[in-house]
Amino acid sequence: MSAPSSLEALIEALRCLPGVGPKSAQRMAYYLLQRDRQGAARLGQALTHSLQVLRNCARCNNYTEDEVCERCQSPRRDATQLCVVESPADLNMMEQTHVYQGLYFCLMGRIAPLDGVGPRELKLDRLLDRACDGVVKEVILATNFTNEGEATAHYLGELLRARGLSVSRIARGLPVGSELEHTDAGTIAQALVERRPL
Amino acid sequence: MSAPSSLEALIEALRCLPGVGPKSAQRMAYYLLQRDRQGAARLGQALTHSLQVLRNCARCNNYTEDEVCERCQSPRRDATQLCVVESPADLNMMEQTHVYQGLYFCLMGRIAPLDGVGPRELKLDRLLDRACDGVVKEVILATNFTNEGEATAHYLGELLRARGLSVSRIARGLPVGSELEHTDAGTIAQALVERRPL
Repeated sequence: MSAPSSLEALIEALRCLPGVGPKSAQRMAYYLLQRDRQGAARLGQALTHSLQVLRNCARCNNYTEDEVCERCQSPRRDATQLCVVESPADLNMMEQTHVYQGLYFCLMGRIAPLDGVGPRELKLDRLLDRACDGVVKEVILATNFTNEGEATAHYLGELLRARGLSVSRIARGLPVGSELEHTDAGTIAQALVERRPL
Repeated sequence: MSAPSSLEALIEALRCLPGVGPKSAQRMAYYLLQRDRQGAARLGQALTHSLQVLRNCARCNNYTEDEVCERCQSPRRDATQLCVVESPADLNMMEQTHVYQGLYFCLMGRIAPLDGVGPRELKLDRLLDRACDGVVKEVILATNFTNEGEATAHYLGELLRARGLSVSRIARGLPVGSELEHTDAGTIAQALVERRPL
C-alpha cells in the first residue's frame, strides 16, 4: 500500500538538493507531477546534460563547457592579476562591480576544518601552479570575511608570498561575518579598490 | 563572459521547483555540480523515469505505476466508504491513523477561485463517477479546514447528497486554518471517528 517505487525514488532523489528535507521533497514531487510536468522534464534533461558537458576550467577552476573557459582565453583581461574567490557566485559578484579586469581562480570551497576541508581537499596545488605561471604578478584574495574565509586567506597569503608573489586582500569594507554573495556591488567595488598588501 | 549555456539552463530549470528563486537555484546548481554529482545524476534519472511511469490511478486519482493502484485493487479495503482528500500527502496522513479501512479519492487540489481553480479544473466529474459506482455508500470529506478546503467540502457535499449518497465530514477536531499534513495522527484519528453527517 506504500507509494509507487518510482515516486519514492523521486522523493528520495530530491533530497540531494541543499536544504530540502523529507517534507519539502514530498511537496516538490507532488507539485512537479501534478502542476509542472514540463518543468520537471526540462529539469531532468538539464541535470543529465549539464553533468555531461560542464567541467572545471583548467585555468580558473570555474564551470565551463570547454577545456579553458572564455574568460581565461580572453586577450582583454589583465593576466598579471589573479583574484581568488570561494565560489562561482562570488566570482559573478566581482564581475558585476566592473572594476576588475584581471583573471580569477575559483576555490570551490574554503578551508573548513570542522567540515573536514583542509588544504588538500581544496586542491590548493592547482592554485599554486596557476599563480606561478610566470605571468601573474599579484594575487588578490577575495574569500569571504567569515572565519573560514579569513583563515583561507591567511593560509593562502603565507603560501603565495613564499613563492615570491605579491599578495593582497580586498579591503574590509564589507561587514565582518558577511558574505560576498549578499553584498551590493558598490561595497564590493570599494573593498577591491582599497585592497591592502598582506 | 557569461556562464556556460548548460549551466544557465540548469539554473533556470531548477526554478520550476516550488519556492525556489534565482539565488536558491544558483546555489543548488553549484552545490550539485561541485558536491553531489551522483545525487544530481540520480535526480535527473528519477525525474525522467517517474514522468514516464507514474500516472493517476483510474479509480482514486493518486499516483501509481498501474492502471489501478494497489490500494484500490485490494479486497481488504471497505469499498462502501470513500474518503476524499486534497493531496497524496493528506492521504498518507489518513493512512497513518490506521483507523480508516475504506478507499480514497484524491482531488489533487481544492476549489480556489483566486487561483483560477473551479469545479471544472478539479475534474470533479471523475469523483462523481467514482462515488456513484453503486458500491460506495458513504463519502467522507477530508479536505483541509482552510477556507478553500471548507468551500470544497461544502460544494462536494451538495453535489454528492443530490446523488443520494450519505456524506460526512471529518470532525473539526483539527484547529481551524490548519492543514492535515502538519497535524499529528492522533488528532486526525479523532476527527475521523467523530465525523458528522452533512
